[in-house]
Amino acid sequence: VTIDQLETPALLIDVDIMERNLQRMAAYAAANGLRLRPHTKTHKIPALGRRQIDLGAVGLTVAKVGEAEVMLSSGTPDLLVAYPTIGLGKLTRLMEVARRTRVTVALDSFEAARQLDEMAGEAEIEVGVLTEIDVGLNRVGVTPGPELVDLVRRIVHLKNVDWEGIAYYPGHIKKMDADGEAKMVALSDTVARAINDLGDAGYTARIVSGGSTPTWMRSHEVAGLTEIRPGTYIFNDRNTVNSCACDWEDCAGTILCTVVSTARPGQMIIDGGSKTFSSDRLTGSTEVTFGRLTTDPAARFHAMNEEHGFVDISQSEHRYQVGQRVRLIPNHICVAMNLHERVHAVRGSEVVATWTVEGRGKLQ
Amino acid sequence: VTIDQLETPALLIDVDIMERNLQRMAAYAAANGLRLRPHTKTHKIPALGRRQIDLGAVGLTVAKVGEAEVMLSSGTPDLLVAYPTIGLGKLTRLMEVARRTRVTVALDSFEAARQLDEMAGEAEIEVGVLTEIDVGLNRVGVTPGPELVDLVRRIVHLKNVDWEGIAYYPGHIKKMDADGEAKMVALSDTVARAINDLGDAGYTARIVSGGSTPTWMRSHEVAGLTEIRPGTYIFNDRNTVNSCACDWEDCAGTILCTVVSTARPGQMIIDGGSKTFSSDRLTGSTEVTFGRLTTDPAARFHAMNEEHGFVDISQSEHRYQVGQRVRLIPNHICVAMNLHERVHAVRGSEVVATWTVEGRGKLQ
Repeated sequence: VTIDQLETPALLIDVDIMERNLQRMAAYAAANGLRLRPHTKTHKIPALGRRQIDLGAVGLTVAKVGEAEVMLSSGTPDLLVAYPTIGLGKLTRLMEVARRTRVTVALDSFEAARQLDEMAGEAEIEVGVLTEIDVGLNRVGVTPGPELVDLVRRIVHLKNVDWEGIAYYPGHIKKMDADGEAKMVALSDTVARAINDLGDAGYTARIVSGGSTPTWMRSHEVAGLTEIRPGTYIFNDRNTVNSCACDWEDCAGTILCTVVSTARPGQMIIDGGSKTFSSDRLTGSTEVTFGRLTTDPAARFHAMNEEHGFVDISQSEHRYQVGQRVRLIPNHICVAMNLHERVHAVRGSEVVATWTVEGRGKLQ
Repeated sequence: VTIDQLETPALLIDVDIMERNLQRMAAYAAANGLRLRPHTKTHKIPALGRRQIDLGAVGLTVAKVGEAEVMLSSGTPDLLVAYPTIGLGKLTRLMEVARRTRVTVALDSFEAARQLDEMAGEAEIEVGVLTEIDVGLNRVGVTPGPELVDLVRRIVHLKNVDWEGIAYYPGHIKKMDADGEAKMVALSDTVARAINDLGDAGYTARIVSGGSTPTWMRSHEVAGLTEIRPGTYIFNDRNTVNSCACDWEDCAGTILCTVVSTARPGQMIIDGGSKTFSSDRLTGSTEVTFGRLTTDPAARFHAMNEEHGFVDISQSEHRYQVGQRVRLIPNHICVAMNLHERVHAVRGSEVVATWTVEGRGKLQ
């Protein structure tokens, strides 16, 4: 089967680009003595998790228990749930996962740790815990200081969880410009402070685990870091390019669309909108565009409804006809993957495999 | 089962509110002599399509062939595909649908009509066609004038399609303020012009079909209109309230979330983000918020990542704890439905049914 024979809209993954991305990250982690525990939210496909393990990843990262359940079939020796897992139902399911592979949970409240400890005790399974610290994203995480030390002290006293260290996600660092450089320095200072405060209180963080893709190549600059959890790097997207963490030719994921209307001069409508790309805008940018045409960067995909993509072609030298096909790099490949039941692995114009996105829509 | 026992995040549909919404629209259509052909993209559930038929709808509307295939099981006597259906694969599947129910396609190019006619001829099935006109949204549709008359002339000459009339979608009319009132007048003028131009050329539009939910109660003001295709009205959402087409108590769809972090003062993080709500912003507004807490409108859901909702509670009188649950009305219920494999029908605090969103993710 060739790409021309696929129905649209369809999400395509260029396997050669993907493999290059995987190997680049594996080599970086190895060269810098960092454990690699990739976040699988980007691909949501156990076979790709398996490939990450085969290339040296020590384990895999997920956000939700439902994703952990799916990712078990990768055969990973270790799963980090980088999300506070709250409530009896979810924790019961998590213990089932923990019977089959080592599980660690990143959390930021004693309530989450207490619930986890209770369920682990009932299940007679030891579960790891990382304490999430806030490094500037202002999302989850405890700000380093007395509160962090106090939380770790209480967690260490729990019987059925093994406190392993700290985790953070520097999602506020979008780009390595002057602002990003300053934020990298602050990040390193914040992590060092957390490690030192905890060390002074007698708690040694065996694991210091950090995201993300935009900052991955600077991870070795963070003092004390032992592990990285990039996710998007497997495919990359417009956000990754905008963050200067990759080039256009490193984007493995594209969305194939058909032109369905050219009724309005200077515009074409494509058969992909928010149901296909997601309505995520570019992060860290005021520009409102939703994808880049691989063969026509002058075309502006500036608006969308659920099934309609509005592409301004008034500045383009290309002419488009109803039925013609285009490929676009989405703003955010992770959320796009979540919208597709199946995606197609391609090499050149050949479709070499069709993958079910098994972790799609696992909200719980 | 009660709502308290559900895992989160979960999408809940209040069946009493839904039924009232359905009956209100059915009564309006009947009172004004308008055919009702609801757009099922909002619910994507055949049983709810069946309910719409039982309440007097003449048929159902879908955007994609995949949705048409799913909606067949509602037993609808008629399906309008309100989207240009392009390409051999999709048209082959559409002919299979057309063997089981009457099918009409809304399109705006001769190329789309030609492809449809060819496939209908091969399948020996007559398919209806509505010519889409642009009434100001600047999306799909031909602007009324000589070009429209010419397109209809060419379609009428095709042997295997039955030209039935025109369709439009007034998605640019967000709200019935002064601007909306002016746009309603322009809409009526545009539709009248299309009908007259075509009539002068000898083509009588038997069907004049218009969307949408924000304008539904003004549909009878559009001269010549024979049919309405509202979708969102079955559930409503923040956009519908903002458009003044319903009140908060008419919103049947809410998303149940759990507070997973309160580490940062004045903020809570809930376990629903763009994977649960979609990242759709409010339409026709510069406000960046993603949902309204049913019991705490002073809380501001102002930012999101895939699994994290950032809620500013600095202006709220409520205090929240990790593990507590909240319900939110999403900005756009249609895209939220598309993200949930199953949703729960509720009456008060009871879960009365769990529905599979069968039309979810039918991109093609």
